[in-house]
Amino acid sequence: MSVLNTMSATEAAAAIAAREISSVELVEACLTQIEKREPIVGAWVCFDREQALRAARECDATPPKGLLHGIPIGIKDNIDTRNFPTEYGSRIYSGHQPQRDAACIGLATRAGGIIMGKTVTTEFAMFEPNKTANPLNPSHTPGGSSSGSAAAVADFQVPIALATQSAGSIIRPSAYCGVIGYKPSLNTFAPDGIKPIGASLDTLGAITRTIDDHLLMWSVLQGMQSVQAPPVPARLRVGMCRTPFWHQAAPEQRTALERAGARLSRENIEVEEVELPAWFDSLNDLHGQVMAYEVARNHAFEFDAARRDLLGMRTRSQFELGWKLLPEDYLKARAVLHRARNEFDVFCKDFHVMMVPAAPGEAPLIQSTGDPIFNSIWTLLGVPALTLPVGLGKNGLPVAVQFVSGMDTDLFLLAACRKMEALFKEKMDCS
Amino acid sequence: MSVLNTMSATEAAAAIAAREISSVELVEACLTQIEKREPIVGAWVCFDREQALRAARECDATPPKGLLHGIPIGIKDNIDTRNFPTEYGSRIYSGHQPQRDAACIGLATRAGGIIMGKTVTTEFAMFEPNKTANPLNPSHTPGGSSSGSAAAVADFQVPIALATQSAGSIIRPSAYCGVIGYKPSLNTFAPDGIKPIGASLDTLGAITRTIDDHLLMWSVLQGMQSVQAPPVPARLRVGMCRTPFWHQAAPEQRTALERAGARLSRENIEVEEVELPAWFDSLNDLHGQVMAYEVARNHAFEFDAARRDLLGMRTRSQFELGWKLLPEDYLKARAVLHRARNEFDVFCKDFHVMMVPAAPGEAPLIQSTGDPIFNSIWTLLGVPALTLPVGLGKNGLPVAVQFVSGMDTDLFLLAACRKMEALFKEKMDCS
Repeated sequence: MSVLNTMSATEAAAAIAAREISSVELVEACLTQIEKREPIVGAWVCFDREQALRAARECDATPPKGLLHGIPIGIKDNIDTRNFPTEYGSRIYSGHQPQRDAACIGLATRAGGIIMGKTVTTEFAMFEPNKTANPLNPSHTPGGSSSGSAAAVADFQVPIALATQSAGSIIRPSAYCGVIGYKPSLNTFAPDGIKPIGASLDTLGAITRTIDDHLLMWSVLQGMQSVQAPPVPARLRVGMCRTPFWHQAAPEQRTALERAGARLSRENIEVEEVELPAWFDSLNDLHGQVMAYEVARNHAFEFDAARRDLLGMRTRSQFELGWKLLPEDYLKARAVLHRARNEFDVFCKDFHVMMVPAAPGEAPLIQSTGDPIFNSIWTLLGVPALTLPVGLGKNGLPVAVQFVSGMDTDLFLLAACRKMEALFKEKMDCS
Repeated sequence: MSVLNTMSATEAAAAIAAREISSVELVEACLTQIEKREPIVGAWVCFDREQALRAARECDATPPKGLLHGIPIGIKDNIDTRNFPTEYGSRIYSGHQPQRDAACIGLATRAGGIIMGKTVTTEFAMFEPNKTANPLNPSHTPGGSSSGSAAAVADFQVPIALATQSAGSIIRPSAYCGVIGYKPSLNTFAPDGIKPIGASLDTLGAITRTIDDHLLMWSVLQGMQSVQAPPVPARLRVGMCRTPFWHQAAPEQRTALERAGARLSRENIEVEEVELPAWFDSLNDLHGQVMAYEVARNHAFEFDAARRDLLGMRTRSQFELGWKLLPEDYLKARAVLHRARNEFDVFCKDFHVMMVPAAPGEAPLIQSTGDPIFNSIWTLLGVPALTLPVGLGKNGLPVAVQFVSGMDTDLFLLAACRKMEALFKEKMDCS
């Protein structure tokens, strides 16, 4: 029974529906793993054994009411929950207790999901590291800002955790922890009850260990009762793109992308090298401007003199950067952003999905959450992105590739990646 | 001194800075008007005389710290405030007290603004009427969902009120109450702390009695210290558009648009009749689909069985409508939406601003908040819109025109409208 916590949500939900396992057994296995590992990994701001088991007993006493019936999930701590404090990773909100659930919590619980607790976020989902360690090597970062969500899923503490991305906050930690992160198209899921960074960028998504679980969660967060997956062509065309930031990729990341391309080619998948429009190399800076401008204004309350001293240095300097930007510069950036979104929409019609680096390499040491250089541009474009772990680097830590596709082609991207998932079950040596 | 409450925010801020009037005198005049009129107009969920006067005394004791120094403003009750309950117009949130201020409240108070209280919204900023009456004739609706904001400004209870629009919630009540509503481009102002309806539509804006006050508030909500207004060409080109919904406009509204066009033509303004691309007549239905889909998911928590009975009939039926829509239909609607936004961007390059009806006519009787038919399409396109009262209809109630322009040309729109504002000081007979 100790392996129950390694099941995917999809497998576990089927087993619960078939009464092969109980939700209580599953939740108990996850709690055991959480309690054992929390002193080392630190993935949780809070969790509640009694609350989780009570919910599991209720599930076991009733027929399945939805796709997540009896399944434990973790919730990033920038999402409001009425049964758990919500601190946004900030000392300003120490002990803060919302009086209501975010919409995504409402959708997850309506589907029968069991909220295990709140997973650690960096301060206001930005760059100030928090307490979480990489479960594969605690002296390394799990990445951020969805640090706890990635670590908890990678460490088999929960099969699914909700996460958010405004730069690289889902994809990067997933790559560093060797799990599957999915950042949807902009505005795919309901934002109610999630603390905003910037409306041009903020995206709710999830971290899991299988793509089936992403398809499951996609339906849950749309409020649907069954899982959908569109057909995928027999011969997938994958555009492999080194991106303008290739020189910032470590050797293990370069090797990972190239070997992943070779691996796909051997499996009747057409892999073609593609280059982004030349001017797209400016989009990383553009992302920085848009994010800094928007995050500063969205945190006007927290930046008030009475609370400013409670901010970490990196957060404070992000806000200060944003306050130096003028509306006219921000509006110019938005104009470029609209142009880039339209241009990418045309560009990506030449292939089914694009394959790019997921991060600069293996997880760095724990003092920083790493660089979102390979993520920000896709977040800015608002397109869906998914990271798939494919190999191990010189430190024995995961390296991953990232798949992206056109705006609102999320279900196709998930279905296409599911086709490739099995090819990378065995991790390639990328050291 | 009793006329202080009729001053614009811009005039009052200058007078306070010059020590010609005090903030206490201004706030006192507004409070007197609020207290006298509240039993008839019902614009407020709550206001706080002592809190407002305390803030005013603090302003009077210090040099101006920002553009709104000592100026009273009203806040729509779907915006979180830590010093006032925030009920979102819903029985579910009766007495609900947030622990923090929304970002826009942080920005307004940082600029020295005095939060007078919370103005009435329809339930979750949708279609269920609340207690507010039209101050010009209490048997008629003030419009919605920003009912209290429009009524309070029209009734000289405050010079400025914050408001939001996801269909016609700023423009329509402003038109019905004879004040100036400005719905910015999508994502112009920080959304933090405002309860979402749908990310494709939700827009924070303001209602005032002068366009100068909109320019002022624009700077405040961008966190700027001075007011900007771009130059306007000597000869403005105005595209006058009856829209595909012209047959739904009452005679007084048709007369208002046509006479406004004639009025502008006499003033060296080029007025040309323009027609939207034919397929744009489908955008009103598209708006309905996008809004219903998104609002249902954003209110998953409130639609939970435990709370559902506390919803009004119209709100509940909106949610139920949204739950009937499938993700694939929603995604199709988004694709059309993107196409329409791009097409309108090209279309509106032929003129400086477009002039269209603001509402179907005068304010209807109080049983409904009126039809957003002349507003939804602009909200869906995400473009800036401003309503200007131009005449009086057969019931002696205001009729207005609406100006719209391309995405992110907000400051230009405000400056262009300021040029036209004085031409309509004297209201035309449109009965």
